[in-house]
Amino acid sequence: MAEIPVGEYLFRRLKQIGIETAFGVPGDYELALLNHVEPAGVRWIGTPNELVGAYAADGYARLKGAAALVTTFGPGELSALCGIGGSFCEMVPVLHIVGYPSFAAQSSGRILHHTLGDKSYDHYVRISSELSCATTILKNPENAIAEIDRVLNAMMFHSQPGYIGITEDVVKTMVPVSSLNSTPIKMTLSAGAEDDHTLAAIMATLESSRNPIVIVDGGAGRGSWAPHANDLIKALRSLHFNTIMGKGVVEEDEPLFAGCYAGVGSLPQTSKAVEDSDCILWLGHMPSDFNTGMFTDQVKSSTIIDFQRFQITVGNKQFQARMTSVLPKLTEAIKTSSILAKRSLPEPVAPLFDQVLDIPSSIITQDYLWPRLSSFVKPGDMVIAETGTSQVGAVATKIPKGAYYWTQAVWGSIGYAIGGAIGAAIAGKELGRYKRVIVLTGEGSLQLTVQAISILNRHGVVPYLYTVERYFEGWDAIYNDVPDWDYGGLFKSFSPEVPTTTFKIQTAAELDRILSEDGFQNATSPQCIDMVLDKYDAPGGLKAIFDYKKKAARA
Amino acid sequence: MAEIPVGEYLFRRLKQIGIETAFGVPGDYELALLNHVEPAGVRWIGTPNELVGAYAADGYARLKGAAALVTTFGPGELSALCGIGGSFCEMVPVLHIVGYPSFAAQSSGRILHHTLGDKSYDHYVRISSELSCATTILKNPENAIAEIDRVLNAMMFHSQPGYIGITEDVVKTMVPVSSLNSTPIKMTLSAGAEDDHTLAAIMATLESSRNPIVIVDGGAGRGSWAPHANDLIKALRSLHFNTIMGKGVVEEDEPLFAGCYAGVGSLPQTSKAVEDSDCILWLGHMPSDFNTGMFTDQVKSSTIIDFQRFQITVGNKQFQARMTSVLPKLTEAIKTSSILAKRSLPEPVAPLFDQVLDIPSSIITQDYLWPRLSSFVKPGDMVIAETGTSQVGAVATKIPKGAYYWTQAVWGSIGYAIGGAIGAAIAGKELGRYKRVIVLTGEGSLQLTVQAISILNRHGVVPYLYTVERYFEGWDAIYNDVPDWDYGGLFKSFSPEVPTTTFKIQTAAELDRILSEDGFQNATSPQCIDMVLDKYDAPGGLKAIFDYKKKAARA
Repeated sequence: MAEIPVGEYLFRRLKQIGIETAFGVPGDYELALLNHVEPAGVRWIGTPNELVGAYAADGYARLKGAAALVTTFGPGELSALCGIGGSFCEMVPVLHIVGYPSFAAQSSGRILHHTLGDKSYDHYVRISSELSCATTILKNPENAIAEIDRVLNAMMFHSQPGYIGITEDVVKTMVPVSSLNSTPIKMTLSAGAEDDHTLAAIMATLESSRNPIVIVDGGAGRGSWAPHANDLIKALRSLHFNTIMGKGVVEEDEPLFAGCYAGVGSLPQTSKAVEDSDCILWLGHMPSDFNTGMFTDQVKSSTIIDFQRFQITVGNKQFQARMTSVLPKLTEAIKTSSILAKRSLPEPVAPLFDQVLDIPSSIITQDYLWPRLSSFVKPGDMVIAETGTSQVGAVATKIPKGAYYWTQAVWGSIGYAIGGAIGAAIAGKELGRYKRVIVLTGEGSLQLTVQAISILNRHGVVPYLYTVERYFEGWDAIYNDVPDWDYGGLFKSFSPEVPTTTFKIQTAAELDRILSEDGFQNATSPQCIDMVLDKYDAPGGLKAIFDYKKKAARA
Repeated sequence: MAEIPVGEYLFRRLKQIGIETAFGVPGDYELALLNHVEPAGVRWIGTPNELVGAYAADGYARLKGAAALVTTFGPGELSALCGIGGSFCEMVPVLHIVGYPSFAAQSSGRILHHTLGDKSYDHYVRISSELSCATTILKNPENAIAEIDRVLNAMMFHSQPGYIGITEDVVKTMVPVSSLNSTPIKMTLSAGAEDDHTLAAIMATLESSRNPIVIVDGGAGRGSWAPHANDLIKALRSLHFNTIMGKGVVEEDEPLFAGCYAGVGSLPQTSKAVEDSDCILWLGHMPSDFNTGMFTDQVKSSTIIDFQRFQITVGNKQFQARMTSVLPKLTEAIKTSSILAKRSLPEPVAPLFDQVLDIPSSIITQDYLWPRLSSFVKPGDMVIAETGTSQVGAVATKIPKGAYYWTQAVWGSIGYAIGGAIGAAIAGKELGRYKRVIVLTGEGSLQLTVQAISILNRHGVVPYLYTVERYFEGWDAIYNDVPDWDYGGLFKSFSPEVPTTTFKIQTAAELDRILSEDGFQNATSPQCIDMVLDKYDAPGGLKAIFDYKKKAARA
């Protein structure tokens, strides 16, 4: 009977579910494991640290459906936890594989490095269990295959991180190669016990509604249901919207796209259209602070049909149904509904993407910047906006058909964007659909994970760096001061063998000129625009939310 | 009755125990808290990310006895955990202060950013409880003072991290300023129930021994007992040794200092002297892998008098005694022992620091590098060696009286050194005893936390960068390849306003020339030596350990 080592089994299994690249940082307890990555046909991309690796895995998984991060026991795995927490929160399936000391070493009664010095080996798995839907430490070859498959299944089913600890000895033990013949993922989202009842309830509400709309949000693990959202919208022919978290799921260059809804942070015509609707199909509804203009949304909950991963709520009734299963059925039902077929198209609501912009005569304003990027973003682009100002500002940047956009709207970890971009750049190449990665970030965020540039520049990218992080309490407090860095110098020094270009600019005219140039648009090497913006400027949506909150606090 | 906010109480309490600087990264849940740092007379040093902040706090605490790190709920605190784990493992008292959302927001039933999206607020404190000796979330002003003091006391008593979560609302509530009048630390190490019995047992063993020695190790929280080690050594007049972890506690320029004991990684004369002794006073004994030449130490356990923080073992008998309390009593007993007074001084064992070195004619060798640094290190220096090659190599670098040295020998997290150096640089200035920080690190380690340079360069430092990370399995495996960076470019770009100098060198003659220059020795601005060493070269101690292990594996 042909056999392979457990380590190779693991990576071959990952390959079967579409993971072609594994990210991570080498460490001694994991070296035995890493020897099995390439023989399994999986590529290894080392990242400068584990946090960047975890962010890269998250970015990769958002495009490819799943990802793997490999770290070493103790310091390595703990350094990745902020990234893993983000994947848990935003429902991104990332497998965290951790190289453990051998059981012989563990049971020797001696103190090993990377432990807490107390000869206990379960602290870290307990820690990770708070941030994972399933965990295991592989103990022996008899159950290694079953345990690997159990964690992988849970990870894909729940669309959340899984954790596999694998010791140096178990890595090398042999298992039958025929184990790879079974289907890797057995738990699927196809069967829902109450699909039919759910569908009937939704259709009844929809057919009796006056002005239904669709809001494409980002919750519920968008990887599994996003492919169905576009069909639904096309079938229903209603106005559709997105949210800060849901931006990027469907294209924004359609006549019935009516803007990003974020409470008082929305355009007035956008919020009016949402708040006037009597039936909102809210896909992946995620009513978190950053995603609702800090809870300034004003939608009657009775108007919402709330689509979650394992539950759909229609009026007062909760159905145990799976969104991914129900959405395509709903699209078919809508297509064959004679009542809905009689409806005329709604009046379009322009989200103001395509207005002609006056170029400000001096410094770049936030009001100018974000809409100006619209004509720069093309099909084949992946655009990632850092949490905070960039993600609020980018609402005004149009994402056309064939482009992909995402941001971390709930977890909101600064420093994520440039790490996530690494994973996206690599996933984009594997998918063959994407050519450029555009990173919208700020200097405060860049401080945390700047070494990601080292990997990003080696995989083709156009990062944009600009200032911010002041629209909160303590604007001028010294703890908010970010030390000045020479971004052009860093951009070059992290990849001295790669030709890079940095533009350091201050005026809107310079920005417009650079963005208009063919050479810049079609660059084949990394480009950086280091823009200086006014310290107290902020995107319109953010200003509106803060003004509203200030008034509310005074009232 | 005069009152102050809880936030200010906290930082004033920290000031009372000697914490003059707090490290951290601002985040919105912690902004209200940060407003109280400076009014309490504590300085704020923002770090580029939380991991660097945690390492800086660790480095600061090792010099000043305690430190504080401030992060924000969720992503911020999780990003610091690898650093906190290191402080726990190596018994360094760091208080991790985390800014929490207000209880009003927590109980609103809404989804806040930085949560896992599940409206639960206790995941992170459970995680940190694995890495802390005490945790609390301050709930109300009534018990806030008691809880702060409880965690601080535990932290100082156990010499391990504590965790205080503090919500935005509790930060601002008022408490009596008179609460600050009580002694902040009530639990002390002075009283040991069995001190007298312990002392008698130690003296009996010592007086009947033939050739007692002292090994100054690094366990047991060296901050509390290190001040007593030198007196003990002087009183006993025996040979004394250190270990990789204990290096730096006492000076090495004494005639009876006999080298660093690390099993087969030691000099032959050093290991012989240790292994021949019939009575070893082993202070802060930490028999971990990295600290024992990968368990190649050959000392009979019956010869060890094992000094731990809360326990001392003499022969077969364990005493519930506190090392910090017993050591000064032991020194006095030794001084008044007529038996010991009659002993003649032992023959010195030269640790080979001061041999005249031939300068190799070409590339810098590890055998040349480390002893060559000896004459460069002066009183008033703080020297930190990165885990791995640097910490093994630096065994051959002499640390003179008035200099301070440390390394992370058990936790062994690469990337620690440059972060820890930030804290040391600041603590060194506060203590007024130190002028230079010398960071011995490698390119692989620097990848993880390179942005620390930004803060380090603003506080005066002389980092040395050189290559390694190959003396393990898979030497030429692609996962061990570190992308090339332009270290000089980075050194300059992280602090463009600070004049810096980088030397990129390959030959031993260049190294010798630079180290000999007055201008370099007395530099007032950051200096970097980017040295290229042979990829397969390693310090002698490391080679000896691996050769021994290879032979053992074949046998």
